[in-house]
Amino acid sequence: MRTPVMPSTGALRPLGTEEVRLTGGHWSERQAVNASATIRHCLHWLEELDWIANFDRVAAGEAAGRPFQRAGREFSDSEVYKLAEAMAWEIGRTGDADLEATFVELTARIGAAQHEDGYLNTAFGNPGQEPRYSNLEWGHELYCAGHLIQAAVARLRNHGEDEFVRIARRVADHVCDTFGPGGIERICGHAEIEVALAEFARATGEARYLEQARLFIERHGRKTLRENGFYYQDDVPVRDAEVLRGHAVRALYLSSGAIDVAVETGDRELLDAVRRQWDRTVARRTHLTGGMGSQYADEAFGRDFALGPDRAYAESCAGIGAVMTAWRLTLATGESHYGDMIERIAWNVLAGAVAPDGKAFFYANPLHQRTADPDPSDGDALSHVHAGGRRAKWFDVSCCPTNLARTFAQFAVYVATADDQGVQIHQHAPAAIDTRVAGTRFALRISTAYPDDGAITVSVEANDGGERTVSLRVPAWAAGASVTGPDGETRPAEPGTFARVTADFQAGDEIRLDLPVEPRWTLPDPRVDAVRGCAAVEQGPVVLCAESLDVPGGDLDELTVDTSAAPVVRDGRVYVAAHVHDRADGWPYGPAPADDDGKTAEVPLLPFRLRATREPAAMRVWLPVD
Amino acid sequence: MRTPVMPSTGALRPLGTEEVRLTGGHWSERQAVNASATIRHCLHWLEELDWIANFDRVAAGEAAGRPFQRAGREFSDSEVYKLAEAMAWEIGRTGDADLEATFVELTARIGAAQHEDGYLNTAFGNPGQEPRYSNLEWGHELYCAGHLIQAAVARLRNHGEDEFVRIARRVADHVCDTFGPGGIERICGHAEIEVALAEFARATGEARYLEQARLFIERHGRKTLRENGFYYQDDVPVRDAEVLRGHAVRALYLSSGAIDVAVETGDRELLDAVRRQWDRTVARRTHLTGGMGSQYADEAFGRDFALGPDRAYAESCAGIGAVMTAWRLTLATGESHYGDMIERIAWNVLAGAVAPDGKAFFYANPLHQRTADPDPSDGDALSHVHAGGRRAKWFDVSCCPTNLARTFAQFAVYVATADDQGVQIHQHAPAAIDTRVAGTRFALRISTAYPDDGAITVSVEANDGGERTVSLRVPAWAAGASVTGPDGETRPAEPGTFARVTADFQAGDEIRLDLPVEPRWTLPDPRVDAVRGCAAVEQGPVVLCAESLDVPGGDLDELTVDTSAAPVVRDGRVYVAAHVHDRADGWPYGPAPADDDGKTAEVPLLPFRLRATREPAAMRVWLPVD
Repeated sequence: MRTPVMPSTGALRPLGTEEVRLTGGHWSERQAVNASATIRHCLHWLEELDWIANFDRVAAGEAAGRPFQRAGREFSDSEVYKLAEAMAWEIGRTGDADLEATFVELTARIGAAQHEDGYLNTAFGNPGQEPRYSNLEWGHELYCAGHLIQAAVARLRNHGEDEFVRIARRVADHVCDTFGPGGIERICGHAEIEVALAEFARATGEARYLEQARLFIERHGRKTLRENGFYYQDDVPVRDAEVLRGHAVRALYLSSGAIDVAVETGDRELLDAVRRQWDRTVARRTHLTGGMGSQYADEAFGRDFALGPDRAYAESCAGIGAVMTAWRLTLATGESHYGDMIERIAWNVLAGAVAPDGKAFFYANPLHQRTADPDPSDGDALSHVHAGGRRAKWFDVSCCPTNLARTFAQFAVYVATADDQGVQIHQHAPAAIDTRVAGTRFALRISTAYPDDGAITVSVEANDGGERTVSLRVPAWAAGASVTGPDGETRPAEPGTFARVTADFQAGDEIRLDLPVEPRWTLPDPRVDAVRGCAAVEQGPVVLCAESLDVPGGDLDELTVDTSAAPVVRDGRVYVAAHVHDRADGWPYGPAPADDDGKTAEVPLLPFRLRATREPAAMRVWLPVD
Repeated sequence: MRTPVMPSTGALRPLGTEEVRLTGGHWSERQAVNASATIRHCLHWLEELDWIANFDRVAAGEAAGRPFQRAGREFSDSEVYKLAEAMAWEIGRTGDADLEATFVELTARIGAAQHEDGYLNTAFGNPGQEPRYSNLEWGHELYCAGHLIQAAVARLRNHGEDEFVRIARRVADHVCDTFGPGGIERICGHAEIEVALAEFARATGEARYLEQARLFIERHGRKTLRENGFYYQDDVPVRDAEVLRGHAVRALYLSSGAIDVAVETGDRELLDAVRRQWDRTVARRTHLTGGMGSQYADEAFGRDFALGPDRAYAESCAGIGAVMTAWRLTLATGESHYGDMIERIAWNVLAGAVAPDGKAFFYANPLHQRTADPDPSDGDALSHVHAGGRRAKWFDVSCCPTNLARTFAQFAVYVATADDQGVQIHQHAPAAIDTRVAGTRFALRISTAYPDDGAITVSVEANDGGERTVSLRVPAWAAGASVTGPDGETRPAEPGTFARVTADFQAGDEIRLDLPVEPRWTLPDPRVDAVRGCAAVEQGPVVLCAESLDVPGGDLDELTVDTSAAPVVRDGRVYVAAHVHDRADGWPYGPAPADDDGKTAEVPLLPFRLRATREPAAMRVWLPVD
């Protein structure tokens, strides 16, 4: 089945892209741009910068005469693999023959660099380089291997066994041979091999891959890495930790792997540990956008309630890691709130991390941009500006573009699941679902302009199995939601649950969920220090922001808003009542720092994902209240 | 004269330690602890870690058989020099014969590593090392040279020409030979050589040192360093910049050097540029404590109004750099507000950066510590925890301990200045001043328990010159201050100015300044996002904080304060009226996030400088208002 995560057990069964596909709307458009622009853009840069050529050089034994000089950072192989994964999903989705030819060619170049014993890495272990596994903290060798293996899972499920999959098998076998009991009983400084091996075990049926994933999970927190265990999640065993911490992407990839291992081994304690960590992370370490990792230093989770919007790192890849984790928890538990978080992250982190044209990217996604930064210079092949206010074409550490590409290519799978009673709809997007429930066909079509419009209609296209339940996620913010069954009866839908409609569905039956998508004021928990005294506007799952371009005078620091009036929609834009001040500088602390009443103004907002798509501007999500 | 900064022109003339000395109170105690504990502590660690032995190894040509393996980071020489400077000041202050012997011995060890042509550095240019000046961005060679030269200034003025000074002359000549016109026309990635050469020119009369300092200042902003010019202040010429930016210590050392060059060369434009940058930095980039450098990443100044208290870096060395800058501006302009900032920094950054016993240090000085971190492990010889909530004995990057040592050893000079009309008192501390004004003796004694008590009495001990003016700095916060002349007449003293008393003073005459030192609520400028809705308590120049140890239940996140009641003093402690809440976790954003009224409580505060001197605790300066 064409799906990235396929547990052997769990509350819900994922659907493959042969069972669910996007049929229009925002995510369908993103997939189209991903296919037509982003994947080629990434391929261009990987060639331009010789990150693919690194494989050719290893294959050619170029080190003979001189030390092997490779291009890119030590983890650049992983970008090639993540792009291969994106291509595998895209080939599966559309059957693109050109892309298939490119994939086969890339496979040959990768395979040519593989050692006899299965080892494959262009940064270590080749003539003139540091030895294999000589720097587990920072070498990223198992991290790269993990991305190769995840790509192989995609290839196996979208295409079947081929040379790419065989390369990955040899890598996975080599990893098990080397890091199994009695071998190097340590971990990689960047989690990823765990989640990859666990899924490869599911995809291939090889139990040793799962066992090796389990060993890596258990070794975390045993302090087998030198120093700084907190950063690598090597400070506390996964099953003992209380909250996600350290480098955010690492923490979320590790959580994903831990869930897979817990589910496959029936380790309830481990699963509960990850759920506990997720809950506290959501309650105390997550930004309004769903962005995780609040601090730039170490690209890490900050402390509880340390959620400053201007230095929110909220890395795009951490968003992907959070979707990976939340999706696995959805499948394991069947609870709806994980889908709330996937929706929030998808609309506000992932969708905005790629430019509308698919060719520029945000690495960090802060909720407040203080200055109108210019675009990264065209002359900079590699942008070091991971954290500027404008999207960049590529980065020296360029994990996000390829990661986003693979995620958008597989996005349809997050829309729905099934169980023996029926189908659960997690993401409200135009889609066609055609699956089997308890052995018989059940086909649905989702029609909606959500979140621009709150009506979501599910039409039954075929039902061969009698009574079924269709469950629609009602987001926790959706106070006033209602659901209408095929009998035409409308009843309230409880926010934070699934609205369940059970019937002996006939083709042509319709279910309708109505979600309230008027723009609304949102306030922070009083313990979130950095945004005290502020409010934000949300519209459905979409977080809005103000840009200085729309503020009279252009100084966003001088804007305050009046939350006594609801935001209004006019000509498709959301407006808030505001005041624009003109304050004098001086020592900024005192008994009654200077303020003024300000001039009244009506200021338009825009979706956070569309920030920085006009002229350079300052931007903020959290707006100080008058 | 025994003073670190001696401009040839300016509004005010500095006094040397032969003219002004501390006679009791807080700063006198700090000097005593500095002498009895901190200097020896630093010496111990510099020996323990072989950072002094690096000089012996270079001298012994130890590289012969194998590549020279040196101890410490590339800038560790500078710690030896800063400690030498501290010792030079301390020897000048007390005539400590043991310390003099240690200084002479250290001089010999340093000198033995000097190359024939004057080059002196243990990290570059010796057998087995990278060549001299092969990494100006990060090599810190001129930075180290600068600290050697500043120590030589201290030695020259406290002792006179000796071998240490001769070593520094050879270094300075070598720098001028190498980096003069036609030489390497670039800069060092860490400013320091500028301020050092400018003062060495003043101390030795060598004009070429000043010219070289001027060249280095002018080369900043010409992009002679690779990449990241912002960090090194190589993005914009000093005279064109609008605000301090990039790495805070670098920015402030550079500003200090620029002022020296501007003053000595009569470059009014350059002086005005630094004043403009300082003013905007104070208004928009400075914490309540006077701490500068609001972000951990790059140890840098954040953007305007980016002043989050929990991730405030506010490096101890940046505090020292700010005192260096503010003192030079005091001397150049005669304005009182620079002294306000020195006072604020001294009480809240510098005094707290050293433990009461003088043997543990804060590197970063955030205004909010979210968790009760334990002490750095005793097993860690070098603490990597630059930013934890507890003081550490030493650091791998250990710039702060020696920098604090040299600053406390010379602290008396910041108390007062003179001009042809009289004496200006900038810091209110018990002190004896005995100087000459317009050629004749003028001796004063300051008696005060400030800031515990607001009364500052200046007694005239001798006046050989008839009419004089004694000027006492009235801090900007001191609403309600008054001054009483020798005639017994009391008049209001305008905050933010000098209270000036002019008289034909006789021995025994007294002037009294009364400053209001009751604890007071302080609110932030509405543009300081991170502390909106909070208030802090200040008492005179002292910023107070709450520690979780004093909060019922121990959870500082659950504390709010009632600012309608003034803070009260009871048994020497300051108390505020507060509420302690008990809030539930969940998604922390919504239409009306859960809050409760809380239980009323009275919570004691303590001076920020005394934080983390009891059990581990969470701590915060800015307290959320009910």
